[in-house]
Amino acid sequence: MTDVGRDYTQITYSVAERVATVSLDRPHARNGYTITMSDELADALGRANRDPDVRVVVLTGNGRDFCVGADLSQGGFAVDHEIEPDTAWQEPAGRVSRRIFASDKPVIAVLNGAAIGAGITITLAADYRLAATDSRFGFVFTRRGIYPEGASAWFLPRLVGMGRALDWMISGRVFDAEEALRCGLVHSVHAPERLLPAAYELASELVTTTAAVSVAVTRRLLYRMSGVDSPDPVHELDSRLIASIRHSPDAVEGVLSFLQKRPPEFRGRVPEDLPAFLPRTPEDTP
Amino acid sequence: MTDVGRDYTQITYSVAERVATVSLDRPHARNGYTITMSDELADALGRANRDPDVRVVVLTGNGRDFCVGADLSQGGFAVDHEIEPDTAWQEPAGRVSRRIFASDKPVIAVLNGAAIGAGITITLAADYRLAATDSRFGFVFTRRGIYPEGASAWFLPRLVGMGRALDWMISGRVFDAEEALRCGLVHSVHAPERLLPAAYELASELVTTTAAVSVAVTRRLLYRMSGVDSPDPVHELDSRLIASIRHSPDAVEGVLSFLQKRPPEFRGRVPEDLPAFLPRTPEDTP
Amino acid sequence: MTDVGRDYTQITYSVAERVATVSLDRPHARNGYTITMSDELADALGRANRDPDVRVVVLTGNGRDFCVGADLSQGGFAVDHEIEPDTAWQEPAGRVSRRIFASDKPVIAVLNGAAIGAGITITLAADYRLAATDSRFGFVFTRRGIYPEGASAWFLPRLVGMGRALDWMISGRVFDAEEALRCGLVHSVHAPERLLPAAYELASELVTTTAAVSVAVTRRLLYRMSGVDSPDPVHELDSRLIASIRHSPDAVEGVLSFLQKRPPEFRGRVPEDLPAFLPRTPEDTP
Repeated sequence: MTDVGRDYTQITYSVAERVATVSLDRPHARNGYTITMSDELADALGRANRDPDVRVVVLTGNGRDFCVGADLSQGGFAVDHEIEPDTAWQEPAGRVSRRIFASDKPVIAVLNGAAIGAGITITLAADYRLAATDSRFGFVFTRRGIYPEGASAWFLPRLVGMGRALDWMISGRVFDAEEALRCGLVHSVHAPERLLPAAYELASELVTTTAAVSVAVTRRLLYRMSGVDSPDPVHELDSRLIASIRHSPDAVEGVLSFLQKRPPEFRGRVPEDLPAFLPRTPEDTP
Repeated sequence: MTDVGRDYTQITYSVAERVATVSLDRPHARNGYTITMSDELADALGRANRDPDVRVVVLTGNGRDFCVGADLSQGGFAVDHEIEPDTAWQEPAGRVSRRIFASDKPVIAVLNGAAIGAGITITLAADYRLAATDSRFGFVFTRRGIYPEGASAWFLPRLVGMGRALDWMISGRVFDAEEALRCGLVHSVHAPERLLPAAYELASELVTTTAAVSVAVTRRLLYRMSGVDSPDPVHELDSRLIASIRHSPDAVEGVLSFLQKRPPEFRGRVPEDLPAFLPRTPEDTP
Repeated sequence: MTDVGRDYTQITYSVAERVATVSLDRPHARNGYTITMSDELADALGRANRDPDVRVVVLTGNGRDFCVGADLSQGGFAVDHEIEPDTAWQEPAGRVSRRIFASDKPVIAVLNGAAIGAGITITLAADYRLAATDSRFGFVFTRRGIYPEGASAWFLPRLVGMGRALDWMISGRVFDAEEALRCGLVHSVHAPERLLPAAYELASELVTTTAAVSVAVTRRLLYRMSGVDSPDPVHELDSRLIASIRHSPDAVEGVLSFLQKRPPEFRGRVPEDLPAFLPRTPEDTP
């Protein structure tokens, strides 16, 4: 993976009020997905993840569409030229979905317009996917003679069940926001002009009402521990976590603010205040 | 875990018509969850599990609420004083949810009023969660600076999908019975005065129409075998089970009663008539 | 498993327009399930799977019902006489559900009338289950003193969540098409006379719009890779697959047809053009 630095060319990045906004920024190409874009997204997501002042990430697309999928403007999938005879080569959708999976900050994906192919698979690890009434979605791989990527075969059945995952991925058909909501792919649907404001309202609520360390731990519990064979190892980890709250200023503040009927002021920071014994993966913040 | 004996102080236990009723019984404190309560619940659930005259367990709360979560009346989480520098310490919600997971009798949780924090996580392994129209729910841990417990990170995504589990557990927001029903957290919603009667009608139907051994085996198949990598080992166990029905009086009665168009009278008892080759865990009835 | 040859006695098999139709054919017995039927179904499904001219399989039942479950007309479960003291004996529902699980062609199950017991469990691995407005379903095992089979404890929670799976399998109650649709057991519900036409319209759409190799790979990704502990190994396989599309005529055709705004003509054949590095199981086409 190339080090893209932070002079991004195909995305934009900004932080305000503890919310980082990462935007796909090739509106002339309907945010057609490229290798450069994937590496810039992974870099920006890692940056947000390491920055303790960032509490929540909003991932969106500039222009009418979130992302129409792989950029085909050069007459082929833009992945070709970079492929080396190297087994460690990573296809570009997974470079982003795995980064979101490993994030210790919640990610809110704002799916304006079309979210097709990589345009939907990169968002499957997000905590929230918000759509507009005119959004549309498609896992169109079988209709292009290719394959679903971004580890979407892992994420999609967990979100919508195996039956709907087979339907969408086998048929490759395009579907609308109403179906996406009914099946659990998106959390809510908004009028187009209300979509981005709704995302920031949700982000702001998460910033003001939740504890950063609690959120990061909860995310790891759900993503790292729900796949084990039995609840027993999860309960073991839960027990270590609950035992640790005697030493947690956030837990003290949680009780005090509750008893005093006032909003809490949690001060724990992520990543530095994360418990050391959490399960980790190579993608985690160093 | 202390041996609480059977002179329960924070729950009640009774058996009638082959249905055990286990009730949280601190109505003055809205059934705030304590370590004593958790050990008494675990004891009562184990007692029901070992008693072959008990076919179904109804788990409910005396008073207006099922359980508002950890009792904070002493100014902190009531777990503190018991924590030893002992890696085997078990946090109290999981003491109950693991016991329900390992139960060979179906458990019907009756969620009147508030089911918040441990008040909902202890019930996630139940076969049925029934709610009233005015019930409300919350995985409020991130809003208190603490962590989800009771192995809830294992159970919740299996019930409602990963998307809704992330939403509820990351935001910590409180939600109503209609949302709980739509998302699959509860099986049915009833007028408050109809809630407990509906639970006993369901319990009675299970007692009169189903075979105790079949129910226990089915529960183990779903909970112990659905997590393996492929359906092949499940089919292996299914094959041993189906091969064993030649020697099963319940299976004979099932066919005969069907052919004779009469209600079956199953005589198999649990735990003593369970097939010896079922997968087991340390929590299972000895 | 006996070699049943291809002079089927309890099913019918035909191929037209690249769609194989496999029909349970004991309408006088409401397609009561037998060992012979299971072996004929497994044989026919394997035949369709190996035939590169077959793109899609429609599985249905001749007469009013899809299948009422195990044939009890001999006064017992028809599995008895064949059971040997042989640990490799396979119960008959799983002989079919595992074959569908391992299929590289999508399977559309058409559930007319009753789909009870084995009549529903053998279809749980299908890509689509279509129902009529008067269809009804039941995992009735606990009401017959027996056990769910066909590895249904593996498949059902993946389709409808653990809560609904427990409800249906513990209670054994019979339910209608509306509930099956709402809970995700079936994909769509049709007027009885429209049911089979709807299945063939769906089959035809899959034949004309999707690439055979892409469909087979997608099916394996969903069924073989979604159970692993983390998305990382899935992304590894995705990366090998995406790297391979440089050499894929189907992928080239997918891009060209898209850019030329014409329907694609995919020529890849299954099983012969499947990538060699896919995960495999003993049930796979040799």
